[in-house]
Amino acid sequence: MSWQLTAADLPDLARGATLLGTGGGGDPYIGSMLVRRVLGDGSITVLDPEDLDDDAFVIPTAQMGAPTVMVEKIPAGTEPTLALRTLESHLGRAADATMPIECGGINSMIPLVVAAETGLPVVDADGMGRAFPELSMETFAVYGVHGSPLALAGERGERVIIDTGDDDRQMEWLARAVTIRLGGVGHIAEYAMSGAEVKRTAVPRTLSMALALGRAIRLAREAHTSPFDAIAETLAPTLYSHVRELVVGKVTDVERRTTEGFAKGRAAIAPLDAPEETFEILFQNENLIARRGGELVAIVPDLICVVDHESAEPITTEGLRYGQRVRVLGISTPAMMRTAGALAAFGPAAFGLDEEFVPVEASRAMPHL
Amino acid sequence: MSWQLTAADLPDLARGATLLGTGGGGDPYIGSMLVRRVLGDGSITVLDPEDLDDDAFVIPTAQMGAPTVMVEKIPAGTEPTLALRTLESHLGRAADATMPIECGGINSMIPLVVAAETGLPVVDADGMGRAFPELSMETFAVYGVHGSPLALAGERGERVIIDTGDDDRQMEWLARAVTIRLGGVGHIAEYAMSGAEVKRTAVPRTLSMALALGRAIRLAREAHTSPFDAIAETLAPTLYSHVRELVVGKVTDVERRTTEGFAKGRAAIAPLDAPEETFEILFQNENLIARRGGELVAIVPDLICVVDHESAEPITTEGLRYGQRVRVLGISTPAMMRTAGALAAFGPAAFGLDEEFVPVEASRAMPHL
Repeated sequence: MSWQLTAADLPDLARGATLLGTGGGGDPYIGSMLVRRVLGDGSITVLDPEDLDDDAFVIPTAQMGAPTVMVEKIPAGTEPTLALRTLESHLGRAADATMPIECGGINSMIPLVVAAETGLPVVDADGMGRAFPELSMETFAVYGVHGSPLALAGERGERVIIDTGDDDRQMEWLARAVTIRLGGVGHIAEYAMSGAEVKRTAVPRTLSMALALGRAIRLAREAHTSPFDAIAETLAPTLYSHVRELVVGKVTDVERRTTEGFAKGRAAIAPLDAPEETFEILFQNENLIARRGGELVAIVPDLICVVDHESAEPITTEGLRYGQRVRVLGISTPAMMRTAGALAAFGPAAFGLDEEFVPVEASRAMPHL
Repeated sequence: MSWQLTAADLPDLARGATLLGTGGGGDPYIGSMLVRRVLGDGSITVLDPEDLDDDAFVIPTAQMGAPTVMVEKIPAGTEPTLALRTLESHLGRAADATMPIECGGINSMIPLVVAAETGLPVVDADGMGRAFPELSMETFAVYGVHGSPLALAGERGERVIIDTGDDDRQMEWLARAVTIRLGGVGHIAEYAMSGAEVKRTAVPRTLSMALALGRAIRLAREAHTSPFDAIAETLAPTLYSHVRELVVGKVTDVERRTTEGFAKGRAAIAPLDAPEETFEILFQNENLIARRGGELVAIVPDLICVVDHESAEPITTEGLRYGQRVRVLGISTPAMMRTAGALAAFGPAAFGLDEEFVPVEASRAMPHL
């Protein structure tokens, strides 16, 4: 069912999108300020994918770059629409709607900036079902819709079109080079597709899920009930139905570096119930793998979410600090994100990890929340 | 006057283009092999700029990348035409002719590959009047025609369009990043312009001058006369009328490194007439400055050409070896390449040199040849 999003929804959406960012994805709060400035008292139509005409023309929009840069370099706000218009002009067809390529982090917000500026509706779906560090890591591509041609816009009005045919990794490789030279952040329009292709290749209803998660956490706090129960209850009827508590503990070490346009690193957490054991998370923009005492407890593409141990406020890898008390949640991803094709695109091997994918609900983790 | 170029002209053209490459510009011999393969027994129409209709549509084509890479990575040959077709399609207009952006080095040949493949004529003019390391160093830009939009093609069919408006340095910066990620070499179409703009902004008749230089050197050798006299006689009636012998000596040291897509370095030569003095050349792909005993004798944009001391065969910076006996020639550039605007684009300061431009004919050099 389609619905209207207003500025009042943005704080909850930002909180939920940060959770789905699994440590990365860029700061949706910055994105929400951009949306607020353009949207004012207006509203944005969020289209349920089932309400899309099969022959509708959808152009997703997003930001690419290192989250550590995005925090310091706030975009002007006009770039994502310039990217969309550049791709429309290149393809000779106007978009009927925009859509996130990534529901976690700032990319939950960028299509809303475009929608507020252009009046286009936003499709309630995305191509990652979370956040991922590379443009090629898309269910769209896994199920046959490719990213090319991609349009990229810079803050000084630069416009770049990249067409690598079916080779989405080469597209990512070239677009990343341009983004680095634009100062670390670029805005893109890519994976243009029909409504029928959205229904076949996108992870559905992830924007509304992010909003529902953020709202549930806030309402639980206001009611002095458990925000962790609220998260589990919100996700239970969705495609993300399994939530596991992987650890409760204290951050004892964080290493991170920004290299080749990515924020890479490692966090160590001492479990409260067994401080001598090490709980370790490796990340590349997003959290990739969690091990406890050397044993795998959760791995990409499942969600590994670090949150405040009491308020459940999501904590990004840039926000991780020594001494923080945190909970780490493992959340199962939809079946369409766990097929062999999906794992080839964004499973462990795609990040250079040797481990096989194990669903978080099947791993040695703590009980279901 | 327009004329026909055939495969028989290619060795002379390659020799002359290497001389005008002033140490860089990439190897025209490799380019001539690409032309020969496509051209066979056919011929290419070389259009004098004065024969161009004012409203003709000209799309220059070229290769970009580090010469040290080009020697090892021979292009397939279809990329420059793909770049031209990509720009035609983007602009919605078919080209009436192609043209070099650079008459020195391999870029004297790339438009001939396009001409042989497409049947388009090539305009006898270019935008550098020699070779330069960056796409923004063009008389076209100095006199108001900008490079954007640029189309870039890779060997696996990648197509990239870059539009930075009037900012040619930003265009170069982004295109260079893509080229590096394509493996160090990319093929481009850029500086699309009208016939009237060609007449106003291009350095005229540089392709025929390169051919005449290469032919004159060969004929002098065959006749056992001085190839240096032949060079001077060939250039005297052109816009490049002053030729000075800067030194005759032995190469004593060469330092070079490929960094950020450029071949940068320094060559030292011991003068035969005063071996204790040092004659030094600094280069960035092309030779930038020559000093003798610390004193300036020639500086960019004038041509600093290292040639074999007897045969006058041009020697590129990659070809420089310890112990070689060489002559270094300084050649004056046309007045349109020495204006304040031209010097801002490709004079000493554009390369980070502190020295002011001094015309080679006014510097402390050896007498006019």
